[in-house]
Amino acid sequence: MSEARIWHGGDLDEARRLFPQAPEPWIDLSTGINPIAYPVPILPASLFERLPSPADHRDLEEAAAAAYDATDATAVVAAPGTQVLISLLPRLRPRSRVAILGPAYAEHAHAWRGAGHDVTEVEAPDRLDGADVVVVVNPNNPDGRLLKREALFRHAEELRPQGGLLVVDEAFADFDAGESLVPVLPGNAVVLRSFGKSYGLAGLRIGFALAPAQMAARLRSALGPWAVSGPAIEAGRRALRDWQWLQAAKSARADDARRLDRLLSPVAEAPLRGTILYRLLETRQAPELFQYLGRRGIWVRRFQYNPHLLRFGLPRMETDWQRLEEGLDGFSQDQKVPELQSSPKEKPRPV
Amino acid sequence: MSEARIWHGGDLDEARRLFPQAPEPWIDLSTGINPIAYPVPILPASLFERLPSPADHRDLEEAAAAAYDATDATAVVAAPGTQVLISLLPRLRPRSRVAILGPAYAEHAHAWRGAGHDVTEVEAPDRLDGADVVVVVNPNNPDGRLLKREALFRHAEELRPQGGLLVVDEAFADFDAGESLVPVLPGNAVVLRSFGKSYGLAGLRIGFALAPAQMAARLRSALGPWAVSGPAIEAGRRALRDWQWLQAAKSARADDARRLDRLLSPVAEAPLRGTILYRLLETRQAPELFQYLGRRGIWVRRFQYNPHLLRFGLPRMETDWQRLEEGLDGFSQDQKVPELQSSPKEKPRPV
Repeated sequence: MSEARIWHGGDLDEARRLFPQAPEPWIDLSTGINPIAYPVPILPASLFERLPSPADHRDLEEAAAAAYDATDATAVVAAPGTQVLISLLPRLRPRSRVAILGPAYAEHAHAWRGAGHDVTEVEAPDRLDGADVVVVVNPNNPDGRLLKREALFRHAEELRPQGGLLVVDEAFADFDAGESLVPVLPGNAVVLRSFGKSYGLAGLRIGFALAPAQMAARLRSALGPWAVSGPAIEAGRRALRDWQWLQAAKSARADDARRLDRLLSPVAEAPLRGTILYRLLETRQAPELFQYLGRRGIWVRRFQYNPHLLRFGLPRMETDWQRLEEGLDGFSQDQKVPELQSSPKEKPRPV
Repeated sequence: MSEARIWHGGDLDEARRLFPQAPEPWIDLSTGINPIAYPVPILPASLFERLPSPADHRDLEEAAAAAYDATDATAVVAAPGTQVLISLLPRLRPRSRVAILGPAYAEHAHAWRGAGHDVTEVEAPDRLDGADVVVVVNPNNPDGRLLKREALFRHAEELRPQGGLLVVDEAFADFDAGESLVPVLPGNAVVLRSFGKSYGLAGLRIGFALAPAQMAARLRSALGPWAVSGPAIEAGRRALRDWQWLQAAKSARADDARRLDRLLSPVAEAPLRGTILYRLLETRQAPELFQYLGRRGIWVRRFQYNPHLLRFGLPRMETDWQRLEEGLDGFSQDQKVPELQSSPKEKPRPV
């Protein structure tokens, strides 16, 4: 599978290609990024001009260690986004049998396969046994499935005898950290934490690996010094230390997620799932709904492996909420047209 | 050799540790970064908040291809700085014999050794024969040695039969691109180009590899999508298309380099060398001069392999130039003190 063929959220160029007649501005609900960003501080020119200092880079890692409740700040490796860590990890191990609890964020399987490993995607945690490397996204993207910390710990224990590795991608754990493995990190586990999603600053590119000392050293060495930009270090360390902002954001986004569920539930054929930052809708009409919303400039996330799923991020502005509500209402109304057609007095609405 | 032990320019924390009594602000001449930066455009919040789009990332690579005179834009891989490319390249090859034309930027040898290759540093180009991988920094850092394009081409030819690779780090070629290998890139050569040095925006983290298709694909895959931040993509593509700015900067910095040579020549025991962005001073008094300037808040670059070398970047402001001139004058005067001591009427100056 080539990289270009993995579908990702956030690509409005693709939206405009598919729906050239859609009204601008697009409402991008295709990502799981907090639409209300942490306010970027004023960034002095020196952050753009000078190489980031090792002390400032270290300080970002210490801010992350505190925010994620890590016991050992030296185990935190800052990177320009989690993605590069996902891409690098498979290159640090000899050829292994890799089991990924899926369906999950597609880049994991892509990266391990691309590096020559034998990859299996399994749908149930009890089928993860027998692998050398186990990859779990927790909470999972897109369905929000959450494994308990104890279960993760057990997987790490089972992998230990054969020198196996547990990879836990906690990209969406900031708002739901109860099962995070970070505070009790086993010696053969790596946790990935994203910065950009919960803080709404995905363009800055910051991500972290929390890893045992030797693996942390290998990741640092593969990235080299200065992989994280000066502006990212400055904004990132401030945001990570702003605990109050995170708590307020969590509360506000949880309200948004409930509001989104209310809008989606008339169309849903299964319980809505996900995290605070995205909701997964299951309906056989997903392809039609994708088209319907797309023509109205609303871009949501579909999935190659299941055409009946659509993932919705949170709208940002009240006008976006209203456009989404109108879109969903209109779709529901139009779906009733076939019934109305049986009455000779009613003209079918144009679809 | 651990990473922490490679000396780099630009770390004022280290300067303050070594010279706690030095006056602030420090004048940092320890890097080869243009002190007059390209003016960063106003960066809309969306660049920080949204994931960079694949089209914008591609556009940055196309801007680089045009700026560097590449024949094939698909061969250009953008990264968050050249350093991560230096760190990744050795991981894309089986164990090889690597010859580095040195002394050069220390991270090359560090990265190839760290990935398990057999590394030799040779001082003359004719001693590069017999290796599987040849690494040349051109123009070289710190001494400015410049290999002709024809010589590089010959090395690539010699490497071809055994599947060897030529790596040319053109970090300082923007202002002196006459011998750049980019326009005639051989099929078994990789060229690295830095953005931050000539444009004075090292904190943004942008670098490029120009590589044959297969290697470009492997580098892209190791970095994953979104490795370059939104602000970096936006500022970078504008700057790379601003040819007039680069020409004006080249002319102004060349004047600065000549002015710097005039200040350094009284202390020099060998011809001053380097590039437009740094000058290499050779003198047996280098350790004393390093201390003398350090105590006066002027931070220059010394080298582990030769205590008689100091590298000077360009001062930014006229007041910086004056402090440097006073520092160098004062040092020259003080060096004459031993002679003066023979005269009983003169009191030696305090050092």
